[in-house]
Amino acid sequence: MAPRLTRLAQSLPQTVPFVGVETQERASGRPFRARLGGNENGFGASPRVAEAMTLAAGEMWKYGDSESHDLRQALAARNGISAENIAVGEGIDGLLGLVVRLFAEPGSTVVSSLGAYPTFNYHVAGFGAHLHVVPYRDDREDLEALLQAARTLQPAILYLANPDNPMGSWWPADEVAAFMEALPEDVLLVLDEAYGEFAPPSVLPALHPIRPNVLRMRTFSKAYGLAGMRCGYAIGAPEVIRAFDKVRNHFGVSHMTQVAALAALGDDAFLKDVVLQLQACRQELVTISRDNGLVALPSATNFVAIDCGSDGAFATRVLRNLAEQQIFIRKPMAPVLDRCIRVSCGPEGEIALFAEALPRALAAASSAAQ
Amino acid sequence: MAPRLTRLAQSLPQTVPFVGVETQERASGRPFRARLGGNENGFGASPRVAEAMTLAAGEMWKYGDSESHDLRQALAARNGISAENIAVGEGIDGLLGLVVRLFAEPGSTVVSSLGAYPTFNYHVAGFGAHLHVVPYRDDREDLEALLQAARTLQPAILYLANPDNPMGSWWPADEVAAFMEALPEDVLLVLDEAYGEFAPPSVLPALHPIRPNVLRMRTFSKAYGLAGMRCGYAIGAPEVIRAFDKVRNHFGVSHMTQVAALAALGDDAFLKDVVLQLQACRQELVTISRDNGLVALPSATNFVAIDCGSDGAFATRVLRNLAEQQIFIRKPMAPVLDRCIRVSCGPEGEIALFAEALPRALAAASSAAQ
Repeated sequence: MAPRLTRLAQSLPQTVPFVGVETQERASGRPFRARLGGNENGFGASPRVAEAMTLAAGEMWKYGDSESHDLRQALAARNGISAENIAVGEGIDGLLGLVVRLFAEPGSTVVSSLGAYPTFNYHVAGFGAHLHVVPYRDDREDLEALLQAARTLQPAILYLANPDNPMGSWWPADEVAAFMEALPEDVLLVLDEAYGEFAPPSVLPALHPIRPNVLRMRTFSKAYGLAGMRCGYAIGAPEVIRAFDKVRNHFGVSHMTQVAALAALGDDAFLKDVVLQLQACRQELVTISRDNGLVALPSATNFVAIDCGSDGAFATRVLRNLAEQQIFIRKPMAPVLDRCIRVSCGPEGEIALFAEALPRALAAASSAAQ
Repeated sequence: MAPRLTRLAQSLPQTVPFVGVETQERASGRPFRARLGGNENGFGASPRVAEAMTLAAGEMWKYGDSESHDLRQALAARNGISAENIAVGEGIDGLLGLVVRLFAEPGSTVVSSLGAYPTFNYHVAGFGAHLHVVPYRDDREDLEALLQAARTLQPAILYLANPDNPMGSWWPADEVAAFMEALPEDVLLVLDEAYGEFAPPSVLPALHPIRPNVLRMRTFSKAYGLAGMRCGYAIGAPEVIRAFDKVRNHFGVSHMTQVAALAALGDDAFLKDVVLQLQACRQELVTISRDNGLVALPSATNFVAIDCGSDGAFATRVLRNLAEQQIFIRKPMAPVLDRCIRVSCGPEGEIALFAEALPRALAAASSAAQ
């Protein structure tokens, strides 16, 4: 006889939403030469971050401020909102878990898109809620169908990413604003804007009015290059933001993470430069795709979905061959989307390695098909 | 109409297990001169940590290894166990939340001691389980009564800290081992050893045999001085350790946190030195107590509970006056224990400030009583 997991926990698989790059390296016994699969920001973080952390090294023994006060004030000032509109957490992943826990329970319905962020789905399953998925349409999340699902199913939560992962597609701000307006007021919209800083200004709807049924998710892991420190935040109405205080780990956002995020937020020039590098890299991926007879989908993110021109099995073979050539990328898994591979932007050297490896991968995938 | 919290979330207060030191400073408008309330390690972290982080600063953009492979290997080697016996998480606080989520559900009973770690209780409430508390006996958690409660109530989880927080007391290893042996096999013992590195070797039971119903909780936040990076780990049987994979944030332990913890673990000489400084400081707090006609309770931790010689109201007045003098400490809140204040060890200068402030605080508390 041993301790028993809860019935819900018993029903869950031991799973990981993404098999990590290091796990893959350990499995193959070979390191990747290019790390272009995690939508990380290989252009790195502002040097001010490391400077601030070095300055604060003598405070490594301090628990973080449980209210992330200074960071929330800085984010509020930056965004023209109040600190009461901001919850800071251990990355968007951590915040998504808390949102699901707060608003969905066994028996609840949650709506997302088929092929959208698996870590959100992981949390939905983890709290025993039922996930209803809506197919993408023309490689975008289907706002009309999502709205229809919201009206019909009255879900507790609806998840939408804009710009989208894994396709890099987006809806213009005014259409997202209209979607928010039309959404039933008792449905919580989790609007994941992890890639927002990479998008043209016309993509992100205004933060005002702040609606009681919308949470905007932002992160320091992408444009700010701080995936290695783990900090995300949610923007919403004070009553929703306060609800996090019921369940969050109050001392979960470490002192050094707060130091790092504050420093990153203070370096606008660096952020702008990263976005410029990113745009150039995105264009380079378009060129590489064309040179190989492939179509790169338009992207408002730091990655590009490349249509490999055939089916999911073909794209999977391309990915596998790239992995054999020690190039780490990922790919969408849902029907239709799965014809693509997903390549993150990164430093020139790594993109060159990808460019070199791609023709061989395509040839290998083609010959295997015959 | 707005999105509705789950019934469970509705029932929870917006609460924080501890009001943070920075929150208190903002409320009073004055910084503390001595930070001796959080059981942090004011002696700091190994300089190797900052060095390793500086070396790894160029990797700040990388998500952490989702398996914390290198850290788990190092911990396994250090402890003579297998990496399969180790789960790494966002501090013990984060791991406690996961344990409660995995093993307790609404309707479950969980046993702890009255006055023991409030963050554990916070998680128990947060997942809707029922908390049954057993009073301390002679300022120690009452093993016999806890065992009795385990037998009678058949709880899902039983929490025990050894050495104990907030009293600093402990049970010898052989008595804890006997307790584990006697515990019903279907009760999960969460044995919190956050302060274990400060305790004499005779306090921590051997890690072997690793029992399927025991999880040993350890941290880098105390002896290793890394509260500002947030890393804890659980040691247990592989089947229990694997269960974390069902619900944990797989990428929650950041890359830089793993770098920091590995570096800290590699500096034994520093750890030994910290423990020596801590022992000297503990002795100093005993002397200061005696000089003020008070009794410092024996402690196997990095803090000392000082019996203020009267009741809880008196000790609260002492704490409040110390706060007015800008000295941050905490105190136990449960009956009987609450006659004490709890003072963390720290650098000489801060202890001197406490020594200077204490007589005034005692005088003020006495005069207020008349």
